[in-house]
Amino acid sequence: MTETTSPALRVALAYYQAWTSRDLDTAMSYIADDIVCDAPAGRLQGAAAYRAFMGPFTQILKHAELIASFGDDTTAVIVYDTETVPVPSAPAAECVTVRDGKIAYSRFIFDRAPFDAARAATAT
Amino acid sequence: MTETTSPALRVALAYYQAWTSRDLDTAMSYIADDIVCDAPAGRLQGAAAYRAFMGPFTQILKHAELIASFGDDTTAVIVYDTETVPVPSAPAAECVTVRDGKIAYSRFIFDRAPFDAARAATAT
Repeated sequence: MTETTSPALRVALAYYQAWTSRDLDTAMSYIADDIVCDAPAGRLQGAAAYRAFMGPFTQILKHAELIASFGDDTTAVIVYDTETVPVPSAPAAECVTVRDGKIAYSRFIFDRAPFDAARAATAT
Repeated sequence: MTETTSPALRVALAYYQAWTSRDLDTAMSYIADDIVCDAPAGRLQGAAAYRAFMGPFTQILKHAELIASFGDDTTAVIVYDTETVPVPSAPAAECVTVRDGKIAYSRFIFDRAPFDAARAATAT
């Protein structure tokens, strides 16, 4: 794993390591109770909503690979690719703000189109 | 603009400043002739293909706002939000590898879904 002097990145990477190992409880220990996450489908508010967003994704996750990670005192960015059951390559970026050792804000970027297409193909 | 000691980030930010000012010629001066770009719709190879990808986007761009930017000697990540004619908020992340002062590889992440939806709405 990348060594870093960035406190925000240490939290982001610990969170990433946990959820990509499908350890949702440990991942959620790095998420603030009042997290705000701007995800492709809209804004999520609160840890329960965030868990409901990430939980199903960990279920379909087959493999994740970190592409890049950077951070400073309060902000970190992680870029990674995921292999999931419906989509063979779904890269994502998370730009997070860390407060008191937990992710308080997240800008979550990925392409929904291949997931929409896979869902439509299954529905037919 | 962010000051940085990262050579890769200096190139990425100069490129970003140019294309978000709709100065495609200057933006392309930071793109390697043999650029490889993994974009949501697939892999683009070569500067001409990259220009054909970015050109139409600069035409619909109304405003861009940098959210975060980080880099080291060879890699940079920029995260930004865009306001475009069809989509009011379309955040994106670009993770680039810089070689000889130009972007040689780019992993380009954004959500195609709102653009697809806007196109479908226009088509009806």
